[in-house]
Amino acid sequence: MNYYLGVDLGGTDIKIGITGNRGDIHTKQSFPTNAESDADTLVNHFGKCIQKVIKISGIKKEDIKGVGIGSPGLVNPETGQVKYVVNIQTLNDCYLAPAIEKIIGIPVFIDNDANAMTLGEFHFGAALGYKNIIAMTVGTGIGGGLIFNGQLYRGSTFSAGELGHITIESNGIQCNCGNYGCVERYVGREGIVNRFNTYLKQKKMKSTINKFLDNGEITPKAISMAARAGDKLSNLVMKETGTYLGIALASYVNILNPEIIVIGGGIANAGDLLLKPAKKEMMKRAYPLPARKVKIVRAKLRNDAGIIGSASIAVNSLK
Amino acid sequence: MNYYLGVDLGGTDIKIGITGNRGDIHTKQSFPTNAESDADTLVNHFGKCIQKVIKISGIKKEDIKGVGIGSPGLVNPETGQVKYVVNIQTLNDCYLAPAIEKIIGIPVFIDNDANAMTLGEFHFGAALGYKNIIAMTVGTGIGGGLIFNGQLYRGSTFSAGELGHITIESNGIQCNCGNYGCVERYVGREGIVNRFNTYLKQKKMKSTINKFLDNGEITPKAISMAARAGDKLSNLVMKETGTYLGIALASYVNILNPEIIVIGGGIANAGDLLLKPAKKEMMKRAYPLPARKVKIVRAKLRNDAGIIGSASIAVNSLK
Repeated sequence: MNYYLGVDLGGTDIKIGITGNRGDIHTKQSFPTNAESDADTLVNHFGKCIQKVIKISGIKKEDIKGVGIGSPGLVNPETGQVKYVVNIQTLNDCYLAPAIEKIIGIPVFIDNDANAMTLGEFHFGAALGYKNIIAMTVGTGIGGGLIFNGQLYRGSTFSAGELGHITIESNGIQCNCGNYGCVERYVGREGIVNRFNTYLKQKKMKSTINKFLDNGEITPKAISMAARAGDKLSNLVMKETGTYLGIALASYVNILNPEIIVIGGGIANAGDLLLKPAKKEMMKRAYPLPARKVKIVRAKLRNDAGIIGSASIAVNSLK
Repeated sequence: MNYYLGVDLGGTDIKIGITGNRGDIHTKQSFPTNAESDADTLVNHFGKCIQKVIKISGIKKEDIKGVGIGSPGLVNPETGQVKYVVNIQTLNDCYLAPAIEKIIGIPVFIDNDANAMTLGEFHFGAALGYKNIIAMTVGTGIGGGLIFNGQLYRGSTFSAGELGHITIESNGIQCNCGNYGCVERYVGREGIVNRFNTYLKQKKMKSTINKFLDNGEITPKAISMAARAGDKLSNLVMKETGTYLGIALASYVNILNPEIIVIGGGIANAGDLLLKPAKKEMMKRAYPLPARKVKIVRAKLRNDAGIIGSASIAVNSLK
């Protein structure tokens, strides 16, 4: 039996899990990241956490064929070096994968978390069996990964897949990235919430949102829940959000002619509230042949997507 | 010595040429397409034209390793079938490549003309030595081709690379494709000429365009010539055109992180009048790392681009 170990690296927690051949989780555990420590301390800490999870799993080390680290920020998968991670800055420039490999004695691979998600869906999720894939995460930001001809495509500086930063309104709202009118600005968390609040202030429509607040806050989750309960303003905002998403999907479809677009991330939990208007708008805008061909579906990996995706980095590298 | 033969199939003419190892033209000749003939007659006609060019070249048939056909419209490069060509409709559904192969006894490959241009630049032009390439043709329409990890990427219905049909203004001018605000609508021939005429009618600016008319017409070529001669309105229109192009380039760069974007087609003859503002706008809008990395250059193959590109289909298939 072959096992793989996934390390979902975050600024607060590091989630480690061992997966079987089918991407099923065998053992998992979370640890604090200790992001403030220096790089050597972090490397040793991560190494020990991995060894601990292997120990409690009862799996023989030699049955674990590889370890995959899914990292935020910019990494170099070829050298195993972390280039820039905003939440764990002491790791910047650290050759994290080889350093951990030295400690644990198992091959270690690293990639960014968007590629991890993409590979997770490719090997064990909604994109299993497809060769030309766009995987998108829609949450606070919009990111993604690309698989062409069955191969992960990383681009020339490992930054391909910035799907949120496609201009849909050349004079639109300024995005955090500096550009104007990026789709992220309309479909990401801030865009949704801002649009909701603007409409609420304009008082053109009443809303029952107060019954659905998320820890007292108006969030995409609260808006989705209110929409499902029949709140008109929430439905309008979700429909608009899906429509904006569909404008970008049409551009991806025309340029890249994928077989499938897999959409994950927190905002994708809105399900058909988001995907139905998105598909409709995509069908209206894209060329008919590739538009009919492409499947637009929700990501299949949910709770343990980070761990399974990270393990998939190793699966993909060793295949 | 290895030779390749390229067939640049058009609605009016069929251009046939034999190229050497470096993409240099050895022999070439044009023939009328006879687009109104039925499919069998066309296949025989094309076969005879190819045999004639081989004969006048004096090259031994066995030294010609392959024939590439660059076709307009939609083709299936895997089966060699023409799916839909608007200008030569009798060819629709014809298995053109195998039919010609049967006549001439040399392996025949087919692909669409945008992929032919892309492969021409990849094997013999501006993109030689690069692995992640976007090739764009800017003319009446905007098309293109994509090379990822050194492989031509055709998409799941062979229609990838419709670079002109990315939305840059979600409520913009309607495009011939049905979508609104496609970049083609602003950077293609019609968009440029319409914008010029609109400004001219508004009489906000005088123009010396009449000295540069192209067979009596205002064309992108005339506007470019007038711009080079210092005409202010023409300069404004070309600068705007480049800026619109740059908006799309920024989206390609963010999504695809290419090493190089090669721009060809008639409107690219405007050179820096188009490319300078395009690069400037791309740099303003795209992520800094991939924006600094990408080269944006004019296509290198000019006069015989169609023949050399078509021959490159064979070069690429046989490599």
